[in-house]
Amino acid sequence: MGKLDNIVSLCKRRGFIFPGSDIYGGMAGTWDFGPLGVTLKKKIEKAWWKFFVENQENMYGIDAAIIMNPRTWIASGHTATFSDPLVECKECKSRFRADKIADNISESVTTEEFLATHTKCPVCGKENWGPIRKFNMMFSTRVGAVLPDDNADLTEKSTTYLRPETAQGIFTNYKNVVDTFYPDIPFGLAQQGKAFRNEISPRDFILRDRECSQMEIEYFVHPTTWEDNFEIMRKLQHEFLEEVIGLPKDKIHEYEVPEADRAHYSKRTIDFMFDYPNGEEELMGLAYRTDFDLKNIERESGKSMEYRDKVTGESFVPHVIEPSIGIERLFLAIISNAYSEETVGDKNEIRTVLKLPKNLAPYRFCVSPLLKNKPELVVKAKEVYQILKKKYSNVTWDDSGNIGKRYRKQDEIGTPECIVIDFDTLENNSVTVRDRDTTKQTRVQISDL
Amino acid sequence: MGKLDNIVSLCKRRGFIFPGSDIYGGMAGTWDFGPLGVTLKKKIEKAWWKFFVENQENMYGIDAAIIMNPRTWIASGHTATFSDPLVECKECKSRFRADKIADNISESVTTEEFLATHTKCPVCGKENWGPIRKFNMMFSTRVGAVLPDDNADLTEKSTTYLRPETAQGIFTNYKNVVDTFYPDIPFGLAQQGKAFRNEISPRDFILRDRECSQMEIEYFVHPTTWEDNFEIMRKLQHEFLEEVIGLPKDKIHEYEVPEADRAHYSKRTIDFMFDYPNGEEELMGLAYRTDFDLKNIERESGKSMEYRDKVTGESFVPHVIEPSIGIERLFLAIISNAYSEETVGDKNEIRTVLKLPKNLAPYRFCVSPLLKNKPELVVKAKEVYQILKKKYSNVTWDDSGNIGKRYRKQDEIGTPECIVIDFDTLENNSVTVRDRDTTKQTRVQISDL
Repeated sequence: MGKLDNIVSLCKRRGFIFPGSDIYGGMAGTWDFGPLGVTLKKKIEKAWWKFFVENQENMYGIDAAIIMNPRTWIASGHTATFSDPLVECKECKSRFRADKIADNISESVTTEEFLATHTKCPVCGKENWGPIRKFNMMFSTRVGAVLPDDNADLTEKSTTYLRPETAQGIFTNYKNVVDTFYPDIPFGLAQQGKAFRNEISPRDFILRDRECSQMEIEYFVHPTTWEDNFEIMRKLQHEFLEEVIGLPKDKIHEYEVPEADRAHYSKRTIDFMFDYPNGEEELMGLAYRTDFDLKNIERESGKSMEYRDKVTGESFVPHVIEPSIGIERLFLAIISNAYSEETVGDKNEIRTVLKLPKNLAPYRFCVSPLLKNKPELVVKAKEVYQILKKKYSNVTWDDSGNIGKRYRKQDEIGTPECIVIDFDTLENNSVTVRDRDTTKQTRVQISDL
Repeated sequence: MGKLDNIVSLCKRRGFIFPGSDIYGGMAGTWDFGPLGVTLKKKIEKAWWKFFVENQENMYGIDAAIIMNPRTWIASGHTATFSDPLVECKECKSRFRADKIADNISESVTTEEFLATHTKCPVCGKENWGPIRKFNMMFSTRVGAVLPDDNADLTEKSTTYLRPETAQGIFTNYKNVVDTFYPDIPFGLAQQGKAFRNEISPRDFILRDRECSQMEIEYFVHPTTWEDNFEIMRKLQHEFLEEVIGLPKDKIHEYEVPEADRAHYSKRTIDFMFDYPNGEEELMGLAYRTDFDLKNIERESGKSMEYRDKVTGESFVPHVIEPSIGIERLFLAIISNAYSEETVGDKNEIRTVLKLPKNLAPYRFCVSPLLKNKPELVVKAKEVYQILKKKYSNVTWDDSGNIGKRYRKQDEIGTPECIVIDFDTLENNSVTVRDRDTTKQTRVQISDL
C-alpha cells in the first residue's frame, strides 16, 4: 500500500473520514466527516475565518444560498462552458473523461483528436469510441411545483443548479454590501460553504470529490492597484499556510499558471502546489479575475456595479483578486504532512503517528487511569479529566485496553499529550505526561498541568 | 407595516439577511446571510456545538455529504411519502398546496375533500380545480455522466436527492461511529448542516425556506430508558434556549404533539413553540423516534444495527431521542426578541434597537472619534480601536456621519457599547462609553476598558 492508501485507511479506522453513504455501498465522490474529522474541519474553518476575516480590516462575511437563480450561471459562463469532454465506449457503454484517459490531449479535445490517440477502453479493452460530447458538470435540479409529467417548457423554466463555486454567491452580493456598509476600497468579501461538481470520474480520495467545501475571498480593488494587492494576498496565503496551519515551506510551491492554461477571465494566476503523498497537487489558488464577474453581472442584471471612491469621487467597476482554497485539500495536506511511520523498540514495531500541530489536534489531551479496574485510580483520573475539560474543550478520556494500546491509539489520532494517573498520583498528586512525538514521559504536578 | 416586515427591512438594510439571488429578481425560498448575519449565525452554531457537543459526555460530531445514495431515502420513507398535496387552478394554471389555501382540511387531503371546500383560486378568483396530486418535496438531481438525451432507465438509475433532513446523514454513520469509537450508551451523534425542501409556497421570511441549516442530535439509548433520556434532553433544550441564547422563558411554550399529528415513527414529540412576531411557531423539536430509522437501515442494507452493551453483554438496536433545531428559526427568534422600537427625546423620535445579548451581538464594541475631520482624534481613536481589537475579535470602527447617527446605526445592529474619543481623551485618557439599552454615557479610563 502506498502512503495515500495508508492515510485513507487511518482516516476511516480512526473516524476522521468515512466514504459517503458507506452503508449502502457508497456514493462516488462523496465523503462523510466522522467525529475527529469534524473537529479538525471546524478548527480549519475557524483558523481561516479568524486570520482572513476577523484579523483583517475591511473584510466582510457572506453566506449565500447554494441554490441560486439560474441567470447567475448564464452570466458567469458556467451554463455554456463549464463542461468536460465525455466519451463513451460503444462496446461496453462505459463513459470516461476523454482528456484523462488519453495522453497528450487538451481539455477541449475533438473526436478526431481523441480517435487519433488509439486509446483502449480501460474497462473492456476494445477500441470503439463514440463521439466526444460536452458534459456540463453542474448538478441540475428543479425548483417549485413541477411534476414528472409536466411539459418540457415548464421543466426547463424551473431548472437551476447547485452552485459549482462559492464565488458567485459573493459577486451577486457585492452590491448589497456596498449599499449597506459603504466599505473603503480595497475591501474583501469572504465565504465558507459547499460547492458541487459532477465529476465524471471522482478520484484521489478527497482531492477530487463531487461535493466540497470552499473558503474564498473576493478582494475588490482599484484597477490600477491590482498588482500590489495581488502581492498582499500572496503573502497572506503563505502566512496562513505556514504560520497558522503549520505546513512546511519546502512542501509548498508556487506555480505561475501560463496564459494558455489560465481561466479565460484571469490575467494572472498562481497555483499554490503541495507535495501530497502521490505527488504535487493544487492546494490553494490565487487569481486576478479582473472585472470579469462584475461586468457579467452588470450585463445580465442591467444594474451598475460601479463603486464610487469616497475620497476622489471617481466611479469605477472594481477589479478582483481571489484567494481560494478547498477545505478537503487543506485537510489532506495537514493529515498527510502529519502522518508518519516510525520503527520503535527492540522488535522493530511500526508506530503510526499523526504529528498534528497542537492548535489543530482534535484532542489536546487524553486522560487515563493506569488501570481501569482500580476504582481509586479511576476516580482520581476523572477528577483530573474534569479539571482539564473546564480549561480546554478538547480533552478525551480513554480507559480502554492497556496503556500501551492507548498510547498507540492516541498517536494515530494525533493527541499531543497523554496524562496517566497511577498509584504515585494518589500519594503526591503528580501524573505522568507522555509526549506524542518524543514518546518521553515526565512527572508533573496536577496543579502545573 | 407589521413587526415582521420591519424586521425583514432591518435585516436587509443593515446587512443581516438579503433575499437570495436578489440581483436577478430573487429565488423564492432562499436567503443570503450578509456580513452581520454571518457573524450572528456563526455565534449560534458555535454556542450550540459548545453546549450540546463539547460540554457533554459521549457526544460525537458528524458532517455527512448532502448528496447521499438514493437508497437512504427509500429506507427512510422519504421517496414514498415526503410529499405535499398539490392542486392546480385549471383557469390560470397557478399551483398551490391544497391544505394551505383551503381551511379545515388535513395534509392528506383528497380531491373530493378539497372540492367540497369551495375554495377560490387566490390568483384568478375562479373555482375550477384539477385533481390533488402528491408532490414530493425532495430536490432531485442526477449524479455521474448522464446526458440530456439518455434513455429514461439510465436517467432514473442516476437520480438522487438533496437531503431533506440532516438526520439520515447521522443514522447512516451510526455503525461507523460504533465500530471506531466503541461509545458507552447512551451516546449522541451531532450534526450541523444544510437541508433542502422544495416547498410549494415558501413564506414567512426565513421560517419556511427551501434551503435551511439544521442542528440535530440523534441520542442513542437503551429502549427501556427512553423516558429518562427524553427528559434529560428536554431540560438541555430549555437550558440552551434560555441560558445560552437568552430567550425569555415566557415566550417559549411546550406543545405536546398528539398522536394523530405526530410523524408515524414517533411515539412522543414535543414542539418547542416560540412567540414570533406573527404568532406562535415551532422553534425546536424533540422527538422520540424509537428504533424506526435504524431498523429501516437494517432492512435496506442487510447489516445489523445492534449495539452490544459492554457491561451487561446485551445486544439490542438502540432507540433514539432527537433534539433538533433550524438555525434560521433560532436566528429569527433571537432577532425578533431583541427588536424594539422606543420613543425618545422631545420630538417623539422612534429609536430602533436590537437588544441582543452581549455574547451574540455581531460587534461587542464600536469605536469612534467624536469628529472625523480632527486628525488628532482619529489617531487616538484608531489607537483605542487597535487595543480593543487585540482583546476582542468583534470590534467595529465607525467615523461616518455625526455621532448621533452613529449611535442610531449601532443601536439597529445591536452593538452593546459605543466608545467615543473626544478632546478630553487627549487630556486625560478617558473615553465616553455609551450603553445601547439605557443610552447612558459614562466616562471610563482607556486602561479600564
